[in-house]
Amino acid sequence: MKAAVFRSGDIVVDEVPEPQPGPGQVLVRTLACGICGSDLHAAQHAHRMVAMSKRVAGRTTMDLSRDVVFGHEFCCEVLDHGPDTERRLKPGARVVSMPVMLAGESRSTIGYSNDYPGGYAERMVLAAPLLLEVPNGLPADHAALTEPLAVGIHAVEKAALAADDAPLVVGCGPVGLAAIVGLRLKGARPIIAADFSPKRRELAARMGADIVIDPAEESPYARLPAARRAVIFECVGVPGLLQQILEAAPRDARVVVAGVCMEPDRIEPFFGIVKELALQFVLGYTPEEFARCLRLLAEGEVDSEALITGRVGLDGVKGAFAELANPERHTKILVEPWR
Amino acid sequence: MKAAVFRSGDIVVDEVPEPQPGPGQVLVRTLACGICGSDLHAAQHAHRMVAMSKRVAGRTTMDLSRDVVFGHEFCCEVLDHGPDTERRLKPGARVVSMPVMLAGESRSTIGYSNDYPGGYAERMVLAAPLLLEVPNGLPADHAALTEPLAVGIHAVEKAALAADDAPLVVGCGPVGLAAIVGLRLKGARPIIAADFSPKRRELAARMGADIVIDPAEESPYARLPAARRAVIFECVGVPGLLQQILEAAPRDARVVVAGVCMEPDRIEPFFGIVKELALQFVLGYTPEEFARCLRLLAEGEVDSEALITGRVGLDGVKGAFAELANPERHTKILVEPWR
Repeated sequence: MKAAVFRSGDIVVDEVPEPQPGPGQVLVRTLACGICGSDLHAAQHAHRMVAMSKRVAGRTTMDLSRDVVFGHEFCCEVLDHGPDTERRLKPGARVVSMPVMLAGESRSTIGYSNDYPGGYAERMVLAAPLLLEVPNGLPADHAALTEPLAVGIHAVEKAALAADDAPLVVGCGPVGLAAIVGLRLKGARPIIAADFSPKRRELAARMGADIVIDPAEESPYARLPAARRAVIFECVGVPGLLQQILEAAPRDARVVVAGVCMEPDRIEPFFGIVKELALQFVLGYTPEEFARCLRLLAEGEVDSEALITGRVGLDGVKGAFAELANPERHTKILVEPWR
Repeated sequence: MKAAVFRSGDIVVDEVPEPQPGPGQVLVRTLACGICGSDLHAAQHAHRMVAMSKRVAGRTTMDLSRDVVFGHEFCCEVLDHGPDTERRLKPGARVVSMPVMLAGESRSTIGYSNDYPGGYAERMVLAAPLLLEVPNGLPADHAALTEPLAVGIHAVEKAALAADDAPLVVGCGPVGLAAIVGLRLKGARPIIAADFSPKRRELAARMGADIVIDPAEESPYARLPAARRAVIFECVGVPGLLQQILEAAPRDARVVVAGVCMEPDRIEPFFGIVKELALQFVLGYTPEEFARCLRLLAEGEVDSEALITGRVGLDGVKGAFAELANPERHTKILVEPWR
């Protein structure tokens, strides 16, 4: 089959072996797959990412001397089942899944593994128990937003907001925008959101932010209501951001670190100490949160069309990686391998 | 009066102006005052501490070109009241107080201020509303432990322990030992405590630790019960400790940062992200916690005598600062200016 392959540090379109579903696995056709910031990071810093995975988790499922097919935000169509697999869903059913392959006790992340190609390919194998059928009427491209939405919804859940907490979202890329959706659904108001990009500020307002701030013009922290505890969502994930927040946050603030910074960072703990700040690092989502996000999309709770700023075939993946550097032009580019 | 004065980077014994109680203030005689690690830090890194205070709080109450008298862990005897001050306590009454001077809207930390000498002096002025009378029968030297005990009790309160949380105390100096007391009183068990010093491990056990670990011999993290959420108390406060904890902590752990690190620090956030760790920075205590600690000491809940490892007069302060570097010999040295 055809795939956009990460090979020797580059993205190339090539034929790769047809995936074969094993027991408990389902063969699917990729309908749409979002490009995630983590994919861009992986393409730019693959060796560092592998080294960090080894240090943090003690293992990695990416051998960079072999092909990797990225793509973990997908919506697919069921084609066939592996041997000894309950045929719960009919061929033709549209599905989403957490990008996880179950094989005995082991777990691999689909899209960051040599063995389980992600959604930048015509076909994939998924774990049968994890498949969620897409409700009637929800287009595949919108359903593909389930995964990135779940990241933001999870961040909001981990914030464990109290009734009077005052939220601030720092960075309005896909993670920040999803957090804004989660905050809106929680009824936490006013939602303050900050981003240097006018386009992203516009999207932040569209997703439900009440106050959108250009940090080049004014400090978003100055807009936090003084009498309420601030909950600050860090949705950027670059070195220096944590220190910036430690310095600017008001006393007793809670910082939810949703940005995925893979580099070493420098902080001055004394700012956190004197103000008794709390930091909650977050990653991923629970199966329940993932399923809830599919329902939210199906119920029209998210302006999906506003988030999708581009669609490319496999030939367009490499160009899309370059395009995504420009926050004025793009939020989410979907790969549609059938194009 | 006589005081041990911090002057030009050194500790010298000299005559300083007699403190004059103003309205709302009480003149007291210092009976005992503990030497705190923050005092050692201030003596070694005074300029950095002042610069950090200015950056964090926008101001400092220490002008290093003028004398400063340290000492914020004190028990005193009431001598006289300032003008227009309610004479709530009789002369001769023994008192403790949070080391805070109230003057209109402003707050100064007694012991880190040019205007309000701390307990390394024969006499001090304190804020009348903050005085707590020491219960009958509690010796002044034990009452002087109220403040450092409150630091550990506060750290445990901020941890917001759930019933099944599993505590680990990293570093068994005065703050770590006070945290162990707080954990014991909460009934959180087993309390795991780690320190390189045999003497401090012995004290940790005496304060209530169930399992004491020499980190040179084995990892204290390996002893955390696998099925329970870990709550790790960082009670060291030197650069590198946070990263060490981020690397070693189990998934979902909560880290209470009670060590006061005033230097920049390097962390790799990815360890926190992948394990969804939480960091709660803490400092100080509430008035209620402070008052509770005085009661705990009076009720014999703390083996105070074990914590007090030395007593010096004002002439001995400088030497005590040097001695405290050796964790085998000392935990808490009390300054008794009347000696």
